[in-house]
Parts: sequence; C-alpha cells; structure tokens
Amino acid sequence: VIVVVTPNPAVDVTYRVAEQTVGVTQRVLDVVRRPGGKGVNVARVLAAAGASTTSVLPLGGTSGAWVATALQQDGLTTAAVPVTGDTRTTVTVVDDLAHPTMYGEPGPVVSAGEWAAVTDAVRAARTDATALVVSGSLPRDADPGVVRPWIRDAVDAGLLVVADLSGRALLEAATAGATVCKPNREELLDATGAPDERSGALDLLARGAGTVVVSAGSAGITAHTRDTVVTVAAVPDVHGNPTGAGDAATAGLVLALTARTAPGRRAPADLVAEVLAPDALRRALVSAAAYGAAAVLRPVAGEVDLAAVDRFTTLLERTGSPT
Amino acid sequence: VIVVVTPNPAVDVTYRVAEQTVGVTQRVLDVVRRPGGKGVNVARVLAAAGASTTSVLPLGGTSGAWVATALQQDGLTTAAVPVTGDTRTTVTVVDDLAHPTMYGEPGPVVSAGEWAAVTDAVRAARTDATALVVSGSLPRDADPGVVRPWIRDAVDAGLLVVADLSGRALLEAATAGATVCKPNREELLDATGAPDERSGALDLLARGAGTVVVSAGSAGITAHTRDTVVTVAAVPDVHGNPTGAGDAATAGLVLALTARTAPGRRAPADLVAEVLAPDALRRALVSAAAYGAAAVLRPVAGEVDLAAVDRFTTLLERTGSPT
Repeated sequence: VIVVVTPNPAVDVTYRVAEQTVGVTQRVLDVVRRPGGKGVNVARVLAAAGASTTSVLPLGGTSGAWVATALQQDGLTTAAVPVTGDTRTTVTVVDDLAHPTMYGEPGPVVSAGEWAAVTDAVRAARTDATALVVSGSLPRDADPGVVRPWIRDAVDAGLLVVADLSGRALLEAATAGATVCKPNREELLDATGAPDERSGALDLLARGAGTVVVSAGSAGITAHTRDTVVTVAAVPDVHGNPTGAGDAATAGLVLALTARTAPGRRAPADLVAEVLAPDALRRALVSAAAYGAAAVLRPVAGEVDLAAVDRFTTLLERTGSPT
Repeated sequence: VIVVVTPNPAVDVTYRVAEQTVGVTQRVLDVVRRPGGKGVNVARVLAAAGASTTSVLPLGGTSGAWVATALQQDGLTTAAVPVTGDTRTTVTVVDDLAHPTMYGEPGPVVSAGEWAAVTDAVRAARTDATALVVSGSLPRDADPGVVRPWIRDAVDAGLLVVADLSGRALLEAATAGATVCKPNREELLDATGAPDERSGALDLLARGAGTVVVSAGSAGITAHTRDTVVTVAAVPDVHGNPTGAGDAATAGLVLALTARTAPGRRAPADLVAEVLAPDALRRALVSAAAYGAAAVLRPVAGEVDLAAVDRFTTLLERTGSPT
C-alpha cells in the first residue's frame, strides 16, 4: 500500500467559454468537476498503474462530501478526516484562444485538533504500507510544521517518504528526513532562497533530505545527492496538457522506488542507501520522466496513458545517459 | 403567503482577486457563497419586508443540498423538489479595477417527471397564498412551456401572478395569463422581437398578460396596459450594486399589489381589474422603484435597506407624476 496525503484537497472545476474577457457575463459552455489537489492526482496515477493506495485527506462541508463521494466512485480508497471548514474549490476558465485562467481558493482553516486527527489517520493508514507521499499545498494559515510528524514517523517506521511540497513545508519535510524531496525547480529556489538548483538541493540535503529530485519540465528531471547529480532528459516532442504531469512524475518515481520493497522491513538508513544507489536512482528518474510525459498526452490531470509509459521508458533507457 | 418559484436556482460564488487578468493563476483573496437565482433574491426581500413566503425550487446534487441548508439557515421556508442533476453554480470575479466577470453554468437537465413534481409542489404551496412569483432563467434545454401550468392554475385559483422571465418562457407566461409580466426592457425586446418597448408590451398583452411592467434602470419603471402607460421615475442619485435591484423591484411590486388582498377571494378578472386601476398600478410602481433603489444601497443581491424603502417611497410619491 502507498499512503498519499493531500493536505489541501479541492473540487477542481473547469469552465469552457467562447472567449475569456474581463468584465462581462459569460455563458459556460461546458463544466467539468473533479476531485483535485496534487496528492489526489498522484493517487489516481498510482491506482491506474495497479498500485494499492490509501488517500488521507481532510474534507469539510458539502464540497468535501462531494470529493469523498467522487473519489469512492472512482475506486480510490480514502481515509477522509472530517473538518469544520469547507474544502476549497478551484475554477479554471479555458477557451481556444488564450492561456487558462485559474482561480484558487485558499482552503479552509484547519484546527490543531483536526491536524492531529490527520496525523492519526496517516499513522493508521501506514500499517503494511511501503511508502508515504505528501503532496500539494497546505490550506490557509496552516503551520508548515503539520507535515513533520507524518514524515518523521513514517521514516522511523521504515517507509519510503516522498514529499512534493513548497515553501516552508518543503523545508520542514527535509528536516523531518523525507527520503525524497521532489519540488519543481521554481519551488526549490523559492523555498530555499538559493541562487541555483544545486545550491537549493544541497540546502535540503543538509537539513536532512535523503535525496532531492527536481523536475524542470522539458529540461528533464534531476536527482541530487551530496556527492552526485543524475539527470534524465525529458521525453522529446510530447505536446498536450502539462497540468498534473508533475504529479504523474511523482507517482512514477514512487512506483520505481517501491518496486522491490517489502513493507517496513528495513532500517531507515538502509532504505536511503538503497534509494541512493545510482542505478536505482536512474531507474526512478526514467520512470518519473516516462509517467510525466505520458500524463501530458491526456487532457485531464491524474490520468496517464500506460502504453505511452512503457514506450517512453524504453526510449529513455535506450537513449538517456547519466550526466 | 407569497409563493416564489425559482426554476434554476444557483450557488452564487463571488471571488475577490487583486486584479483580473486572463491567462494567469490567481489567488482568491475572499470567497462569498450564497444561494442565488432571481426568485431566491425576490423571496429574501419579501421575507425581509415581513411577508410570509414559500420558495419552490428544484434542487440536486451536493450544490442543491447546500442551497437547501443555506436557505433554511436564513429562515426562508422552502419546498425543495429533488432532481437528479446538480444545481448550477455561478462564479463572479471582482476586483477594484474592472467590471465584474460572471461565469454562469447552464444548470441541470430537469426531466419531465421532475418538472411535474415542481408543478405539484407549486400547487401544494399555494393553499392560502395570495400571490405567485415565477422568476429567473430556466435550466438548460428546459421546455419554456413548463411555466404554463404553474401560472394558469394560480390565475384560475384567484392568485396574483407575477412572471419575471425571459425568452420564450416570458411569452408562455403571457399566454398563460400572468397578472403581471415584468421583464426588463432588453428582455422584452429580445423575447418579442419588437422594435420598441410599447410594441413589445402590446405583444404580451395581446397574448394574455394582465399588464406588463418594464424596468429600465435609471430610466424608471413603466406599466403598460392596453389603454395606458404609467411611468414612475427612478430614485435619483442612487449609487452602489445594481445586482438584484430588479429582483427587489419585483418584490416591491408584489408587496404593493397584495397589500390589500385576501387569499383566493376574487375571480381572476376582478383581480386584474383591481391591479389595472391606475392608482393601484402607480402605487405598485412606486413601491417597485423604491425597493429597487434600496437594494442598490446594499452590497449583496437579495438584501434591501428598509429605512431607505420608506424614504424613497415618500420621495417618489411627492415628486413623481404619471405620464
């Protein structure tokens, strides 16, 4: 089982209009509503690839109830933690003429007691789990330290922990000893204040991260350890919808890193050593790049083209070389 | 009791952003969620003015459940008709720099059986009622003829019926014999294809409307009968939020026309004769104009400043003159 925590899930709404224009009343031609949040996308891709997952998410209000029902209908196992505030909505407006416009609500205020219930749910969900993924933003005004016990306890229990977080929560994840911190390049530079990717990665490693994997879109994906830098190029000539590609890459990374892992069998240090082995790291990056590219081919975040994953994996294994 | 039918209720969401710009991701600074739809606004104003109301609305999905709960929390009596489709959401984006941008979902597909249940609910709700208001858009693909039985049966039962509809539903309301058809000028010209307001009003009167009341914002409000045209000027120098002002005007009109009406006592023809009496009509227009202007002073649709209603009524009674 792979436990996926989405600290700030959402109802993702997409509105298609004829033409986006500020200041007018627009008829919405088509409405799509999906459960969202980065962790939800990761869990969907993991499940599509055949992995067992449990999604832990705080959910509140009628929007939260809608997310719970929709995830269950999609066949995802969830451990919903009831919260008082309403789960947020994001509205993305699209047309055929301009870039999409996205309106993101900040998310509910989650109390300390509710975060403690999330921590309990994470603990309960990770019995027999091989990995924990914590992915996405935190709700409004949340203490970034809320991620600390989830990550530290899972690391101590011998789980592989992947943190795709931003801002201070990313720093907390590193300090808590996440096996893999996986920001994109912009999030890394923003969180660490570092002038370049390598400096930012070294900052997270110094805090306690096992390795730092940085996705940079068409520039490929790079793993940093204290001693080495391994880059796998992006799959060339892939065009489509980049939304959710980073989440699919996270799923690909986790799938590769847990492929040979029995639950809770190793000491944390052994697990990190295993992940840090150059061959394992390279295989994981290829998997991440292949899943990310395969997600671009699908119009909706959280979906991947599994045949494309195989094709891209073969392509990258044949042509890529560690740098 | 005044029965208010909202055929296409909504969750009205308002997002405040720093600056509206197409093609970017925007943080929503403030979120307001309210039950909406023109009839809901009318019912709120009626209730605020002390009238007993029953709101009949088809509601579906978690959005519909939210509307039902929110209306009950606001103290409005509702007769919700469960439907399969999800109640629509509207999203209005505001900043301090440009006009608001409104995205309106089309609303659910409501089946013939569900419309029959709405008709039953209208019939049940109008026991002891003095008036029926039908207000707002119809959901996607709805047959405009759905409004016919609501209006015809209520007219036959001796109720005052006010229809604030648009398009073919407005024509259906006239044909069904609505006591008052109350479109705004644009809706009237659009529905009838008439070149001017008087011609459009005569069209609706010829179809069967008792009178046609046309609101034209700062140009005032006009009642058309076959023989006369009565205009009351708008309250001058009122600035604020015009959203919902037309709905408050509808409420003001209904309140004035039902002020001396006992439930179900008169033959339909007698009721129309009463409404058409020039004095009664003028009083009703003054009330509509005063409520409309008082709503502009409030930042939110469905609210009125009752002290301002009194002030504006006195002002209009003193200065206005029938034309």
